[in-house]
Amino acid sequence: MTDAAALDRADPLAAKRDEFFIPEGVIYLDGNSLGCLPKAVGARLADVVSREWGESLIRGWNDAGWIDMPAQLGDRLAKLIGAAPGTVIAADSTSINLVKVLSAGLQMREGRKVILSDTGNFPADLYMAQGLIRALGKGHELKLVAPEDVDAAIDDTVAVMMLTEVDYRSGRRHDMAALTAKAHKAGAIAQWDLAHSAGALPVDLAGANADFAIGCTYKYLNGGPGAPAFLYVRPDHLPHVEPFLSGWMGHEAPFAFDLEYRPAPGTERMTVGTPPILGLSALDAALDVWDGVSMEDVRAKSMALGDLFIEEVEARCSAYDLTLASPRDAISRGSQVSFQCENGYAVMQALIHKGIIGDFRAPDTMRFGFTPLYLRYQDIVDAAAALEAILKTELWREPRFQTRSKVT
Amino acid sequence: MTDAAALDRADPLAAKRDEFFIPEGVIYLDGNSLGCLPKAVGARLADVVSREWGESLIRGWNDAGWIDMPAQLGDRLAKLIGAAPGTVIAADSTSINLVKVLSAGLQMREGRKVILSDTGNFPADLYMAQGLIRALGKGHELKLVAPEDVDAAIDDTVAVMMLTEVDYRSGRRHDMAALTAKAHKAGAIAQWDLAHSAGALPVDLAGANADFAIGCTYKYLNGGPGAPAFLYVRPDHLPHVEPFLSGWMGHEAPFAFDLEYRPAPGTERMTVGTPPILGLSALDAALDVWDGVSMEDVRAKSMALGDLFIEEVEARCSAYDLTLASPRDAISRGSQVSFQCENGYAVMQALIHKGIIGDFRAPDTMRFGFTPLYLRYQDIVDAAAALEAILKTELWREPRFQTRSKVT
Repeated sequence: MTDAAALDRADPLAAKRDEFFIPEGVIYLDGNSLGCLPKAVGARLADVVSREWGESLIRGWNDAGWIDMPAQLGDRLAKLIGAAPGTVIAADSTSINLVKVLSAGLQMREGRKVILSDTGNFPADLYMAQGLIRALGKGHELKLVAPEDVDAAIDDTVAVMMLTEVDYRSGRRHDMAALTAKAHKAGAIAQWDLAHSAGALPVDLAGANADFAIGCTYKYLNGGPGAPAFLYVRPDHLPHVEPFLSGWMGHEAPFAFDLEYRPAPGTERMTVGTPPILGLSALDAALDVWDGVSMEDVRAKSMALGDLFIEEVEARCSAYDLTLASPRDAISRGSQVSFQCENGYAVMQALIHKGIIGDFRAPDTMRFGFTPLYLRYQDIVDAAAALEAILKTELWREPRFQTRSKVT
Repeated sequence: MTDAAALDRADPLAAKRDEFFIPEGVIYLDGNSLGCLPKAVGARLADVVSREWGESLIRGWNDAGWIDMPAQLGDRLAKLIGAAPGTVIAADSTSINLVKVLSAGLQMREGRKVILSDTGNFPADLYMAQGLIRALGKGHELKLVAPEDVDAAIDDTVAVMMLTEVDYRSGRRHDMAALTAKAHKAGAIAQWDLAHSAGALPVDLAGANADFAIGCTYKYLNGGPGAPAFLYVRPDHLPHVEPFLSGWMGHEAPFAFDLEYRPAPGTERMTVGTPPILGLSALDAALDVWDGVSMEDVRAKSMALGDLFIEEVEARCSAYDLTLASPRDAISRGSQVSFQCENGYAVMQALIHKGIIGDFRAPDTMRFGFTPLYLRYQDIVDAAAALEAILKTELWREPRFQTRSKVT
């Protein structure tokens, strides 16, 4: 049997847990959906509200540096995803950012009509592409193949290869460097969604030579519910990107109040409206937990936690209807493990009732996320034991666990 | 001389000032740019952070009702702008919302190519239209006329008449009902930006029969820096509006994770990504100050404050280079008064230094906003006296008042 306590004692990230608020009695395996609260956020927001907003009022745009936050936070995020300073901005939602970069990519490959993606991509990304295609009315096609068939589907009809590195359901991970290289060889643009990558594993956008990337900060980056998203543009593309969401914050001189749009020289041209200062400030405070953290340590612990969970669940629950729905090989996974289970929804509700919080993705997937900054090896063992107990006692059969909530 | 103290004693809104935090020594005449902090916001945000996010974690989407906030806040905003429940949502930025409704309007008038606007419209709105036109590549034209020429320019080439009711620079107010009726007679869609209207004066979207509206909540609605914006769709248009920013929050069944977008039946179809809960919660708390407030009282005081300011400034400062840049007739103004002044930037900086906070709009406009919920008549008199003193002493000539900040 694994000595979880010994692993926790030897964990180089163990002290990080103290920087988070973890509710009493909760083992939180849903940081891939909404990260835990970094303790620094409350005080920072209180200060932003009472001092920056309350006292500075409109002067806060200059005095508190609000106007620079999208770029400044972009630079902080850039360090976590292998991007150079000045190439990332924090703004809007992931979906809005997707449209910004996808439209730019299509513009750069005008003659081509195919947007290549896969059926494991987060549906929101597909919806945004579908809407853009309809609006443009230029005969673009969203071509969806199975995740394992993406490589073979890359050809010279593809304008933009639009992928999410880590599958939201299974945790299956694409090879970003290899697929980007193949896309480039075919003359296509490579666009990556890092929703389940940023803060979960080492990302090297520059090394992979990715053209565009977008991502989310409320999962592994702990920015809070609905926190601002981010966007990356490979610097040599910038001069060719004329944003169609051409907002005043992306104007060369927003406060000249000219009647004609002229894009700002830098990545700021990808910003649109007035930046959401409360959300950006919470994110800024949340990013402090990454100071001094090695992403290699995060990845090593993430893989170990995932492996341990699979091992524990399979050892304890082989008698029950559970099928591993994630790659068994940790290298091929993001920072989550999923099991398919016919009564997965009710089983997950029973787990949540017991304080083991994961989530459920229709039709039958129980999802467990591993956030190395605040999870302990012992938590993994305890979670697997709780799952075993629920299956054994059939607790999940209780009617209260069958009712579907609006958000799953 | 006006007896400001007597006016303040008789003011039915006087008690509302206590619900705001006003910094010591400040007379705040920039609530048309960023509203003052409602005292309730700090405690609400602290609770959202520590309890809703910290304790509930992912369960907050159901338990704290986060998922319903865009529609619920929309209903609260609807009451302030003469809209029926279910027709307004709080989401994204004003600029993003503009593209949502403008693209919908163009879709509904496919054969027509003209977007009619005026040179007094906020440039951000024009930029967004320019970007959309470029992206669509269907030969649309943004036709800009002088504000007073809009009426005459409405004809059957116009697909969408895209106006801001109150001019950000001069405060000049369009006649929403009359222009909407004229647009409809010509077969055009009428789209209104309420950035300087919502919370500033009575708005009657339903009565005016407006087709679409957008607006901002960080000005007269005090939602905080970069607070979420709002959007209105006339209910009978909804079935014809297929959003091209087709996000998962606007999907009929977001948590079914289907691969194809299907719009939600209600105004929710105009939402896109995960809602920004911190910003929405601050706005929710900020809207409490409107409970029991009559918008007619707000308008009456707003007009009186503006009239008093013009009267005081003109009486005191006739010897100096100041030209009223707003309609003299209060009925034709929003809730602000502007003066053109060659050295307006420096004069405004000197005013701000003295605690009288207004703002400046290039090239030469000093802007003073009147927010009846937290301004006193005495403040207006004191502000005019301070302006007089600065002009008299030429305090504004000091070098420190000449340096331009990034944000003006």
